[in-house]
Amino acid sequence: MHVVITGGAGFLGRRLAAALLARPMLTDARGAARPIAGITLLDVAAPANLPVDQRLRVVVGDLADARVIADAVPPDTDSLFHLAAVVSGEAEADFDLGMRVNVDATRLLLERCRTLDAPPKVLFASSLAVFGGALPDPVPDDAPLKPQSSYGTQKAIGELLVHDMSRKGFIDGRSLRLPTVTVRPGKPNKAASSFASGIIREPLAGVDAVCPVAPATRMWVISPRTVIDNLIVGHEAPASAFGDWRSVNVPGLCVGVGEMVDALRAVAGDEAAARVRWNYDPVIDRIVATWPPRFATARGQALGMRADSDFEGIVRAHMQDQARPRA
Amino acid sequence: MHVVITGGAGFLGRRLAAALLARPMLTDARGAARPIAGITLLDVAAPANLPVDQRLRVVVGDLADARVIADAVPPDTDSLFHLAAVVSGEAEADFDLGMRVNVDATRLLLERCRTLDAPPKVLFASSLAVFGGALPDPVPDDAPLKPQSSYGTQKAIGELLVHDMSRKGFIDGRSLRLPTVTVRPGKPNKAASSFASGIIREPLAGVDAVCPVAPATRMWVISPRTVIDNLIVGHEAPASAFGDWRSVNVPGLCVGVGEMVDALRAVAGDEAAARVRWNYDPVIDRIVATWPPRFATARGQALGMRADSDFEGIVRAHMQDQARPRA
Repeated sequence: MHVVITGGAGFLGRRLAAALLARPMLTDARGAARPIAGITLLDVAAPANLPVDQRLRVVVGDLADARVIADAVPPDTDSLFHLAAVVSGEAEADFDLGMRVNVDATRLLLERCRTLDAPPKVLFASSLAVFGGALPDPVPDDAPLKPQSSYGTQKAIGELLVHDMSRKGFIDGRSLRLPTVTVRPGKPNKAASSFASGIIREPLAGVDAVCPVAPATRMWVISPRTVIDNLIVGHEAPASAFGDWRSVNVPGLCVGVGEMVDALRAVAGDEAAARVRWNYDPVIDRIVATWPPRFATARGQALGMRADSDFEGIVRAHMQDQARPRA
Repeated sequence: MHVVITGGAGFLGRRLAAALLARPMLTDARGAARPIAGITLLDVAAPANLPVDQRLRVVVGDLADARVIADAVPPDTDSLFHLAAVVSGEAEADFDLGMRVNVDATRLLLERCRTLDAPPKVLFASSLAVFGGALPDPVPDDAPLKPQSSYGTQKAIGELLVHDMSRKGFIDGRSLRLPTVTVRPGKPNKAASSFASGIIREPLAGVDAVCPVAPATRMWVISPRTVIDNLIVGHEAPASAFGDWRSVNVPGLCVGVGEMVDALRAVAGDEAAARVRWNYDPVIDRIVATWPPRFATARGQALGMRADSDFEGIVRAHMQDQARPRA
């Protein structure tokens, strides 16, 4: 198996690569289990802290450049994990940048996949931001796509392309609508959801963190460990398991932002929790508030996906990961 | 008011131009009623049988060429009716052509609209083909977008862009999901629905016509007269009337293909009806069968849109139009 991971320099890309390298086999689009011969990490910047493995290759370049894509995705590619994206806050602030990366680069990647030796598996990291407006609670997989942000719009366009190109037999695609991943290591980013990691990560590191949304705001979250597991489950499932649509809600945990801080307090004490500063930002809150906090996940669970059991466990897993980095 | 109509050489474009020229006023994006100062018809071919009016201008060129778009859509454009499209059967047969015209040209037009003196009204002709798979009957406006054809996928992408760019304030957009328009004059085209006009138009002209779908197949149809009326209603409605989503199901008539031929018989006699040859084509039938035949239209009706009352009336209107061409 030859695997390409876009966004390969990001922490999810690096953890995914490490998790794939640790597996004996991966299942190709024809259903054959094969060992991984190589993984290409494609990103705009070179990844740091890579696992040491001769099977890893790094391509640095602009994802919206067809020549970069052609280099990064060789003809014998069996699987593409497309994780790269301009995040929600940035896509809202810079419409053109979001369109270029989230739509144009996605389309270039899918077009490249049409030209390969055989139609590859394509795992597209979509988002709950494809939903918005009035919605049932919990939100089913086939709720109407009414994104209320440019990021959600761009992800919805990606889902439509993945579905149609799968229907045409160009690729074997699957779009996984990921919950908000927390606790992300490293620095804050321009995702509107960045605070959901910051309010845990910074206090645990002895640093103050700003929370721009109300304590009562609920979010649909998943830990890095569990999201990597679910990405691989989504890859391994046969196309037939997806039925008439290639998009699936990934199981998550519905938790209030105040409860997240309570979990921090329970695990790390009052001093850590006191480092969270509540500083309401209407722009961030408006974006986050359009994301439903709870989803029906029977379909994802039937595929074999799972959610974290509680937020304290997510906090503890982050502390363990920080003590012994996996990637 | 300066108006641009893409697909302006097509019969709907020409009829729309004639209908607009006959109106005293049109309402701009700021709600002001103003007389029409000019209409630009943009298409890949020059229109024939144009109404004689000094306010009409024709631009012939490739809609996926930004220079053509810049010429056709001047800075003082108030309204864009985007009717041009690669039709369903052709978009299914030639994925790249469909993407180029239905997605790339649509995006170029919308991008051009961002640069105008003021955000224009944009009326995007979408399609019931954005829906597919298991659906409630009738299909509500906010049913999930699960297109089962490349044409439907491309129209759904257009709807998402129209909505998001309206939300951003770049345009004042509205996407109208048009029923199958019948009876179209002229020659068959590559739309999977082309037969729905052919089985009426050809027999009335003394020519045999092939019907590629089963008599029991039901369709959601609208006459040329009524669709033009509804396009103008959709343009005139204030943005606030669309609520949280800019796409609307246009009212239509649910009719079985066998009933369409029965109506032909009632209006034009047994000899005309006998000219319909039932010759099942599984490719056409597969596409048409993914289109639901009945839609909930309370929202469209609240905007002021209406449906034809019966199919015999549609046949008679076609005969009148053929006797006295309107455009």
